[in-house]
Amino acid sequence: MKFSEFSDIALPKIENKMKEILALTKIDQDTSLNKMLSYHLGLGEEEPNQPSQGKRIRPLILLLTTETAGGKWENALAAAAAIELLHNFSLIHDDIEDQSEYRRGRLTLWKKYNLPLSLNAGDALYALSFVCLSDLQRTFPDNISFQAYQLLSLACLSITKGQHKDITFEKAPLVSTDEYLEMIEGKTAALLANSTKLGALLAESDKIKQDNYYYFGKNLGLAFQIYDDILGIWGNPKETGKSVATDLYNRKKSLPILYGLAQNQTFKNMWEKEISVDSIQALSSQLKAEGAYEYSLRLADFYTFAAVKSFHQSEPTGPMVEAIEELIENLTNRKS
Amino acid sequence: MKFSEFSDIALPKIENKMKEILALTKIDQDTSLNKMLSYHLGLGEEEPNQPSQGKRIRPLILLLTTETAGGKWENALAAAAAIELLHNFSLIHDDIEDQSEYRRGRLTLWKKYNLPLSLNAGDALYALSFVCLSDLQRTFPDNISFQAYQLLSLACLSITKGQHKDITFEKAPLVSTDEYLEMIEGKTAALLANSTKLGALLAESDKIKQDNYYYFGKNLGLAFQIYDDILGIWGNPKETGKSVATDLYNRKKSLPILYGLAQNQTFKNMWEKEISVDSIQALSSQLKAEGAYEYSLRLADFYTFAAVKSFHQSEPTGPMVEAIEELIENLTNRKS
Repeated sequence: MKFSEFSDIALPKIENKMKEILALTKIDQDTSLNKMLSYHLGLGEEEPNQPSQGKRIRPLILLLTTETAGGKWENALAAAAAIELLHNFSLIHDDIEDQSEYRRGRLTLWKKYNLPLSLNAGDALYALSFVCLSDLQRTFPDNISFQAYQLLSLACLSITKGQHKDITFEKAPLVSTDEYLEMIEGKTAALLANSTKLGALLAESDKIKQDNYYYFGKNLGLAFQIYDDILGIWGNPKETGKSVATDLYNRKKSLPILYGLAQNQTFKNMWEKEISVDSIQALSSQLKAEGAYEYSLRLADFYTFAAVKSFHQSEPTGPMVEAIEELIENLTNRKS
Repeated sequence: MKFSEFSDIALPKIENKMKEILALTKIDQDTSLNKMLSYHLGLGEEEPNQPSQGKRIRPLILLLTTETAGGKWENALAAAAAIELLHNFSLIHDDIEDQSEYRRGRLTLWKKYNLPLSLNAGDALYALSFVCLSDLQRTFPDNISFQAYQLLSLACLSITKGQHKDITFEKAPLVSTDEYLEMIEGKTAALLANSTKLGALLAESDKIKQDNYYYFGKNLGLAFQIYDDILGIWGNPKETGKSVATDLYNRKKSLPILYGLAQNQTFKNMWEKEISVDSIQALSSQLKAEGAYEYSLRLADFYTFAAVKSFHQSEPTGPMVEAIEELIENLTNRKS
């Protein structure tokens, strides 16, 4: 089955599950918390347009892995919705921590409302994610539902540890590429790793198969983030929708830049001076000349290879194998 | 057994469990997240003094209810530590939301560090609370551990809904006493209600007994909060450690004040003018004259009565009944 075909069938069911859970935030007649969360999730009545919703990669890959590991995706819907709610809780808090004003072309929650209400709305989404997961009990034995809770809890811990590193890095004078990879392992890859592992768990797979799915998701997450870092510097603005070399301009400590700084050559000298719109082209060319592009691309390709290997080691079966292969291709051969 | 005797035995074990779980925040050699959380919890090496730790009421009452419901308190330690971690996550975020600079006589976490790191540290504590709970599986069957997760998730949701109301109230022109009671039901009473229910669950009590314990904790939480509101206006500064009528001075919308405003008489007129150190005595006397003190005290006494009734309906047994009765007395007949 094509990924887009599956997505067309499954997405409305994920959205319905999320809406059902979001309804729990209504306090008598007061729907203000519900409205805030619906806005952030792009599920509000005013603007149910696709781009504001994000790609919903994590819940979709969770459902697909449940199928390829031998289960039924319909049974895993509560877990898929829970993962997406959890991901979005972290986005709400990230936007506050980074003082980001826009996300997906719209005002971030804390800019549209205010910081105290939005911080708390993030906490509510966190709670909802766990409440949502408890629906698994309708279909699965208690030991499976309990393990799902454990997985989600550990994923949260990894995300917050990764985020702690990320915030610390902003002020650190020197960050090594190894430290950076550890950071994205928590911040980006942990949730994808636990999504695919959760998918396998809900197919009642054995531990070895669950581990293969975990490493599939983890390596895919790492590859995805590094391609993202490459696009942030050398992506085509027409395709990424961002301005040229946006990460250089914003002095973001992404992988290629950290690699460049570690070379301690011309790029580092240029970086330490002021970065202007005029100098940006020379800066990105110099970074490439010092090997940062090739280093990053090779590493991303390696993680893609490792992801595919882990996926096939799990001995996936059924029509959704095709959809996952297509998704891997989309995520790792991106232009935007 | 006396409450203080039990507390002397149990507290060090709760602290040890919390320290064990906090150790999970270490990232290789980096202990900075661990240090932040240890500071907030009063478990840091520099200042392990009691006042900075809070009273640890929730974990202690959880352990006591496990005993009076017929279980073994030692088996419930992971749940007790989880409840205390959860409570403290909410304090870290509350302090950011309220821009509070001091807690328990020390700088709040976000004032000592910064907002982004502290917001994230709160999230980490939230995650740790759920990770901690998963240790129950070593002692209990999966269905009990799973129900414990469900309880904690629903408690979180109630807390965030209560907090949403509380933040909204600050800017609302008029808040009724009924709305206020709904708010503290979520913000304050829900965690205590779920602590006592969790205690009963971990004694493997039936649903009726669990419900009795739930209402015991809920009513006790409501009573506790209302006595706190009374002390915030008419408490003896020497005993509360706060200045006279501090809640009036800070224009806090506590129960007696909302009652006074609803009377729409002299107090309301005085409140709408500037409040100075000189006028505060007249203001608190006028509030009492309009019946706010008696209304609040009667309501708090009613909830205490209801708490005691629910506790005895649960048919508690064993030497810890005495300790719980003493704790109820301490919490509802307070001078500070």
